[in-house]
Amino acid sequence: MMNNKVVLAFSGGLDTSFCVKYLKEEKGLEIFSAIANTGGFSEEELVEIERGARDLGVADHVTLDVTDLYYRNCIRYMIYGNVLKNNTYPLSVSSERIFQAMALVDYARKVGAKYIAHGSTGAGNDQIRFDLTFQILAPEIEILTPIRDLVLSRDEEIDYLMKRGVEKDWSKMAYSINKGIWGTSVGGKETLTTDQNLPEEAYPSQLKKEGSEEMVLSFEKGELKMVNGEKFDNVVDAIRKVEALGSVYAIGRDTHVGDTIIGIKGRVGFEAAGPLMIIKAHHLLEKHTLTKWQMYWKEQLGNWYGMLLHEAQYLEPVMRDIEAFLENSQGNVNGDVILKLHPYRFELVGIKSANDLMNTGFGDYGEVNKAWTGDDVKGFTKLMSNYLKIFNTVNKGQLDVD
Amino acid sequence: MMNNKVVLAFSGGLDTSFCVKYLKEEKGLEIFSAIANTGGFSEEELVEIERGARDLGVADHVTLDVTDLYYRNCIRYMIYGNVLKNNTYPLSVSSERIFQAMALVDYARKVGAKYIAHGSTGAGNDQIRFDLTFQILAPEIEILTPIRDLVLSRDEEIDYLMKRGVEKDWSKMAYSINKGIWGTSVGGKETLTTDQNLPEEAYPSQLKKEGSEEMVLSFEKGELKMVNGEKFDNVVDAIRKVEALGSVYAIGRDTHVGDTIIGIKGRVGFEAAGPLMIIKAHHLLEKHTLTKWQMYWKEQLGNWYGMLLHEAQYLEPVMRDIEAFLENSQGNVNGDVILKLHPYRFELVGIKSANDLMNTGFGDYGEVNKAWTGDDVKGFTKLMSNYLKIFNTVNKGQLDVD
Amino acid sequence: MMNNKVVLAFSGGLDTSFCVKYLKEEKGLEIFSAIANTGGFSEEELVEIERGARDLGVADHVTLDVTDLYYRNCIRYMIYGNVLKNNTYPLSVSSERIFQAMALVDYARKVGAKYIAHGSTGAGNDQIRFDLTFQILAPEIEILTPIRDLVLSRDEEIDYLMKRGVEKDWSKMAYSINKGIWGTSVGGKETLTTDQNLPEEAYPSQLKKEGSEEMVLSFEKGELKMVNGEKFDNVVDAIRKVEALGSVYAIGRDTHVGDTIIGIKGRVGFEAAGPLMIIKAHHLLEKHTLTKWQMYWKEQLGNWYGMLLHEAQYLEPVMRDIEAFLENSQGNVNGDVILKLHPYRFELVGIKSANDLMNTGFGDYGEVNKAWTGDDVKGFTKLMSNYLKIFNTVNKGQLDVD
Amino acid sequence: MMNNKVVLAFSGGLDTSFCVKYLKEEKGLEIFSAIANTGGFSEEELVEIERGARDLGVADHVTLDVTDLYYRNCIRYMIYGNVLKNNTYPLSVSSERIFQAMALVDYARKVGAKYIAHGSTGAGNDQIRFDLTFQILAPEIEILTPIRDLVLSRDEEIDYLMKRGVEKDWSKMAYSINKGIWGTSVGGKETLTTDQNLPEEAYPSQLKKEGSEEMVLSFEKGELKMVNGEKFDNVVDAIRKVEALGSVYAIGRDTHVGDTIIGIKGRVGFEAAGPLMIIKAHHLLEKHTLTKWQMYWKEQLGNWYGMLLHEAQYLEPVMRDIEAFLENSQGNVNGDVILKLHPYRFELVGIKSANDLMNTGFGDYGEVNKAWTGDDVKGFTKLMSNYLKIFNTVNKGQLDVD
Repeated sequence: MMNNKVVLAFSGGLDTSFCVKYLKEEKGLEIFSAIANTGGFSEEELVEIERGARDLGVADHVTLDVTDLYYRNCIRYMIYGNVLKNNTYPLSVSSERIFQAMALVDYARKVGAKYIAHGSTGAGNDQIRFDLTFQILAPEIEILTPIRDLVLSRDEEIDYLMKRGVEKDWSKMAYSINKGIWGTSVGGKETLTTDQNLPEEAYPSQLKKEGSEEMVLSFEKGELKMVNGEKFDNVVDAIRKVEALGSVYAIGRDTHVGDTIIGIKGRVGFEAAGPLMIIKAHHLLEKHTLTKWQMYWKEQLGNWYGMLLHEAQYLEPVMRDIEAFLENSQGNVNGDVILKLHPYRFELVGIKSANDLMNTGFGDYGEVNKAWTGDDVKGFTKLMSNYLKIFNTVNKGQLDVD
Repeated sequence: MMNNKVVLAFSGGLDTSFCVKYLKEEKGLEIFSAIANTGGFSEEELVEIERGARDLGVADHVTLDVTDLYYRNCIRYMIYGNVLKNNTYPLSVSSERIFQAMALVDYARKVGAKYIAHGSTGAGNDQIRFDLTFQILAPEIEILTPIRDLVLSRDEEIDYLMKRGVEKDWSKMAYSINKGIWGTSVGGKETLTTDQNLPEEAYPSQLKKEGSEEMVLSFEKGELKMVNGEKFDNVVDAIRKVEALGSVYAIGRDTHVGDTIIGIKGRVGFEAAGPLMIIKAHHLLEKHTLTKWQMYWKEQLGNWYGMLLHEAQYLEPVMRDIEAFLENSQGNVNGDVILKLHPYRFELVGIKSANDLMNTGFGDYGEVNKAWTGDDVKGFTKLMSNYLKIFNTVNKGQLDVD
Repeated sequence: MMNNKVVLAFSGGLDTSFCVKYLKEEKGLEIFSAIANTGGFSEEELVEIERGARDLGVADHVTLDVTDLYYRNCIRYMIYGNVLKNNTYPLSVSSERIFQAMALVDYARKVGAKYIAHGSTGAGNDQIRFDLTFQILAPEIEILTPIRDLVLSRDEEIDYLMKRGVEKDWSKMAYSINKGIWGTSVGGKETLTTDQNLPEEAYPSQLKKEGSEEMVLSFEKGELKMVNGEKFDNVVDAIRKVEALGSVYAIGRDTHVGDTIIGIKGRVGFEAAGPLMIIKAHHLLEKHTLTKWQMYWKEQLGNWYGMLLHEAQYLEPVMRDIEAFLENSQGNVNGDVILKLHPYRFELVGIKSANDLMNTGFGDYGEVNKAWTGDDVKGFTKLMSNYLKIFNTVNKGQLDVD
Repeated sequence: MMNNKVVLAFSGGLDTSFCVKYLKEEKGLEIFSAIANTGGFSEEELVEIERGARDLGVADHVTLDVTDLYYRNCIRYMIYGNVLKNNTYPLSVSSERIFQAMALVDYARKVGAKYIAHGSTGAGNDQIRFDLTFQILAPEIEILTPIRDLVLSRDEEIDYLMKRGVEKDWSKMAYSINKGIWGTSVGGKETLTTDQNLPEEAYPSQLKKEGSEEMVLSFEKGELKMVNGEKFDNVVDAIRKVEALGSVYAIGRDTHVGDTIIGIKGRVGFEAAGPLMIIKAHHLLEKHTLTKWQMYWKEQLGNWYGMLLHEAQYLEPVMRDIEAFLENSQGNVNGDVILKLHPYRFELVGIKSANDLMNTGFGDYGEVNKAWTGDDVKGFTKLMSNYLKIFNTVNKGQLDVD
C-alpha cells in the first residue's frame, strides 16, 4: 500500500482548515495534523484546535509542546546575546517558527509521513522558515503548500469549505496576531503603511494599571532565576511572571521594520513586556560585570545570532559555536537588577552584584583616585599618544586643526 | 625674555579659578584663559565667566566658539552612525571635550604659549582627552595639571584662594552638570552607587507639559533640515529646536554605565531629548531607505566611531575613513519621520520618503505577492538549503533533532 | 513587427555556438552576439571570435572592451582592500563576470533587445552572476539560458551543430581556462578531486627563467604607478607588466577552495603572478604607512567587499560605501616596494616611503628608546592593567594561574 | 627579618647577568633566578644557564617547563584560529612571553618573593608583557627593571660585571635570536631598516635538502595527531616533527611588520616552518569541512585572539570566550592534509576527510548538476535579486550602468 500520510502544521485558522479538506479530498491523503506550541497557546485553545482538527476529519492530531526546548536551545541564547533585531525587536515570531518546524519534522518521521504540509502564503518569511528547515532535516519528505500554490482568495477558501459542509465564522480579524512565550506580533492595517503605527486597541494587552512599581530580576550565570525574590525552577515560568507584571502597564510595544528573507522590507507591531525588560536588565547587569571586549564581541555575535535566526538559519553550525561563546561569557553575570515600571515604559534603576566591577576602591569615576598618580597618567597618555604623535610628525601636521 | 605664557582651559569653577591664581603666583606664568564653547553656554554665562577670569587677574581671556565646527566634524557623523554608546548614551560630553582641546591648542599656538593647562583631576576620562589631544597636536607645548599633581581637597583650594583675596560662594553643587549642544550629563551622589538612579530633581530640565503631541523631523541626505515644517539653515538651530520641544516632556533621560579609558567602570546620568529623538528618527528612516548590509556595516562602523571618540581617539585616521563611509551611505536618507511625544517618552510613528524601499508594488510583507510564484520560492529555498542539506548528509544527521 | 532581438554573450566555444544556432533556428530570434573583454583576450582572439559569430549567422557582433572600467570600478578597490578570497584567491574570474554582465545589459538596451542570453550550465557561480545582474538592471528583458534549460551533453550539442552544417574541432580541452587581466583560472580533472592539485603542464604560463631578480613597484595613493622605475599612464598596463615579469617565474599559482553562491564547495586552480605580487606589495606598504585600526577595518571591509563581489552582489549599495572608505584610506599609501622574484615564489624585501611610520627617531623597536622613560612605561602599564587587576580582585583570583 | 627575596627572569645573557649582580650587591636582595622554557631550550642549554646563574651567586635557580601548558592553553587555539598576525606572523615570541610571565608569578608566590625582576629595556613589547601580567596577577609583588631604569650601555654593564669578577665573552651576536616551540624570531641590522630583509646567513636553520617531498598531516578535531602516518601522543612532539621536516628546506621564513603595544612600528624576521605548515594545512582542512559563516567568524575571532595575545591581553576574559567558540568549531575538522615541500616553500596539495563537504553527489562545481533544475536557479535568482530590483526601481535607476 502506498504511503499517503501527510503531517500538516495546523493552527485552526482558515488557511490550515482549508488544507485539511483539500489535501484529504483532492489529494487523497491521510492527514496527521499537529500544532507545535512554543508557549503562546493556553490549554483551552489547544483543546479547541484539536476539536477543530478532528471535526475536519484528520486521521490524528497532536500537540507538540516545545516551550522548554525553545527556551533551553534558543531564548536562553537570545538573552545571553541581548538580541534585539535592528535594536528593537526580540524576534518573537521568527525564532519560534524554527522550533515548530523541527518538531513537525520529528513528528513526521515518527508517523512515517511521506509529506509535510504548511499553510503559508508566498509572501512572508514563515514559508521560508518552514521550507528550509524541512528540506535540510528531511530532504526525503516532500513539502506541500496548497495555499501558496493555488493562490486562492479567502473567499474562495471559505467557499470551498462551505461546499464541503464546513461552516464557521471565518471573518478575518482586523489584525493578525501571533502569540508566543517570547512576545506577541500584531500585523495588519497600519503596519502595511509606513507612516502610521498601531492604535491602542490593536494590542492584546491593554493598560490596566496606573502609578509605578519596582521590580527586581535576579540572574545566575545570565539566567533569570528570581522575580521580586520569588524563585523559579523553570525559567519559562519566570518569563511569564515578568510578562504578567509588565503587560498591565502596556510596556514593551513597538514596531519592527526590517528586511525579509525574500528581500522586501516588512513592518510589524509587537508587544513583549517580558522579553524587553529581561533583555535590558540582563544587558545592564553585563555592563557592570563584563569587560569592554566581552561586551563588544557579545554584541557582534549576538546580533549575528539574531540575524541568522530571523533568516531561518538556526541550524547553521556557526550558531552552535556562537552559543558556546555566549554561554562561556555568562559565568560572572550574577546579581539583581532593579527596574521601575510605569505606564507604557520602564526605567532601569540599578544593579547589585558580587561580580560588579564598579566601586571597588580602585578609584571612583570622576572622584579622587587612589590607585595611581598624576605621573602614572602622564606616562599612560605619553605612550598612548605615541603613534599619533609619530603619525603627525611623519605626515607633516596632517592631523592639525585646519 | 623667557616665554612664560600659559593657555588655561577655564570654566569659572573652583578648580580652574585655583589654577589661575596658582599658576600666576606660584609659577610666575602669564595666564591666557580660554573657554571653548560647544553649545552649552549662553551669552550671559560666557560674559560671567570672562568677568570671573579677569577678576582673577588673567592677562587675557577668550571665548572660542566651536559649536558649528563640532556639528560639522563630529555630531553629523554621530547621527549618520546612530551612535549611542552601549546602546544608551549619545556621548554628550566625551565628544565635545576633543573639540575643546583642539580649539585650545589652536589658541595656544596663536598666542605662542609655552604651556597649556587644564584643571582635571586624576580620576576621569577628561584628563586623558585633554592630555592626548595636546600631546598629539602640540608635543612642543608642556602640559600643566595643578589639580591632578597637587591632589588638593576643595577646602584646601578654597583656603588658598581666600588667602589671596578671592572670595566667592564655592559651595559644591549637589550634582556636577555638563551642558553641551549634544546633551547634558549629570553626575554625583546616586551615580556613584550602582543601585540607584538620579532623582527627578537632579535633572536640569523638568517636566513642564502633559498630554502628547506629534513632531515631524525632515532629513536630507541624513541631515536634519526641518522640524515640524520649519526650515533651518543651520542644523545646530534645528537640534536646539528639537531639544526644546522634547525637554518640556522630560524626554531622553537615562544612565550610562561604561568603561573609562583608564580601566574603571563609570556611571553617569544624562538628559538628551534632542539627540535621542534625532538619532532614533534617523535610524528609523534608514531602516526604510538603506539595504540590510548598509545597516549592518553602518552599525559596526558607527559603534566603533563612538568607541574611539569616547576614548579620545578622534584624531586616529581611521575616523576619517569611517566618516567617508558614513557620508557616502546617506545619499538616500531623505524624508520625514513622525514622532509622538509623551511625558518621559516618545514613540516613532512612521516615515514618508521618496526613497522608501517598502510598499513598492513588488509584494507586501505577509500579503499576497505579485512578483514571484510559489515555484520561485521553492527554487529559492532549494538552493538556499543546499549547503546545510549537504552538511547533514556528509555529517550523518548531525543537525537532526535528537 | 514583433521584437525578436536577443543579445547573446558569445565566447566562440561550443556552448555559445550552439546557442546562436538554437536561438536563431528553433526560436526564430535575431542574434546580436557580443563579447565583453575584461583584458583576457588578444586582438587576434577577438577577431577570430567575431569571424566565428558571423559564420554562425548572427545579425551583428560587437566586442565590448570594459578593461579600463573594470580596473577603475573594481580592481582598484580590490588592491586597496588587499582582497584575497579565503586568504588565497584574487577573485580573478568572479569579479570580471559582473562587468561583462553590465556591459551586456548596456548593449542590449542600445540594441533594444527583448532577450538576453548566456550559455552557462546550471552548476556554477557564473549563471548566478549573469542572472542576478540582468534581473536587477533590466527586469524588463527576458533571460534565455538554453544550455541550462535543455541539459544537453557536449555530444548532443556537437551533433546538433553538425546537422546544421557547423563543423569545427570542438574537442574539449583538458582544462577549462579563463583568462582576464586579474588572473587566469584553470579548472578540470584534479580540481574536481579534493586531494590532488594541478600538474605543472595544466598552467598556461610555464617556468621560463631561473635565478632571481629584484622588482620595484611604486604606488601613489594606493595605485600602482611605476614598475622598476618605468611610469605607466594606464594602471592596466602596469599590471600587465608585473604579470609579464612574474609569469616567467611561474609565480602566483595556487588552488582556491570555497563556497559557491549555490551552496556547494568548489575548487579551482589559478595563476595570477601580477595580482598576487601587487596585492602583497601594497599590503606591506600599508603596514608601514597606516595605523593599526586602519589596517583592522580595511581588512574587515576588504574581505566583505571580496565576498559580496564573489557572490554577485557588486551592485549592492554598501559596496559603494566600502569603496568610499577604502579610497579615503589611501592618501598616505605612497612609496616603493621592493620584491625579489624566484622560480615559483617571491619575497617581499622592504619599502621606501616618505609616509613610513617606522624609524622616525621616536624610538626603535627593541633598541634604546628616546621618547619616554621607564617611569612612563610603568604608568602606562599601571593604567592599562587596571581593569584586569580590578577584575581579578572582584572575582577573587579568577585569572590566577591554575 | 625583612623579606628581600626577588625572583628574576634569567636567560644567561648580559642583561640578566647584570641584574643578578646589581640586585644582589647594590640592593642587597636574595636572588631566585628562573628560566621559563616554552620549548626553545635544549637540556644542555638549560644546564648551562643554571650553571651561569649559580656562578653569579643566586640563592637558587629553577627551570620552569611550561611547554605543554603553553600548547594546551594557547598554541592549540592559535591553530584552531589560524592565527597569523597581519597575515604573516605566527606570534612566535609574543605568545610565549605571557606563559613565561605567568610561570614566574607562580614561582614568586611559592618562594614568597617580595619582588619580581626582568631584564627588559624600555623599547620593546616584552617589558609590557611582563609588567602587565605581573601587575594583574600579583599586584602585591613589586616589579624591578634595572636595565630599563638605569638606561645603561652594554659596555657599562660589561664594565660593571668585570669589576665584580665576572668575565665572559659578552660580544653581541649579530642578531638577537629568540627560539620557542612556535617559531624563532631573528632581529637586528636589516630588520632595523625598512628596505632590506635578513640575509640567508642570519637564519639559524639553513637549507640542507634539495628536491621535494610530500608530507601528510592528520588532524582530529583540529589537533595535529599524526605526521606522515606516525602517531604522537603529545602534540608538542608532532609540532617538533613538522618543524624538523620543514626547516631543512628553509621553509617558513618571513619578516613581520607591525604595531607594538607602545605605538611604534616594529619589524622582525622569523623562521617558523612548523607553525606555518600546520596553520596553512589546518586552514585548508577547514575550507573543506566548515561552513562559510563558520570560516567567517573564526577569522574574525582568530584575528582578534592574535591581536590581544600580541598585546599582552591573554588574561582578558574575552579570550576564554573566544577559545570556547574556537574549540566548539573543531568537531568536524578531521582528516589528512597533503603538502609538498620544496626549498624555501611548500604547496598545499589537497585533503582527505570523512567530513569533507565537497564532492558529495549533490552537484560538482562547474559540472552538470543533479540536485536542482534550471527553474530552481531562476527562482533562486529572482528572489535573491528582489531587493536590488526594488532598490533600483524606487531610486530610479541609481544602480544602472553609467
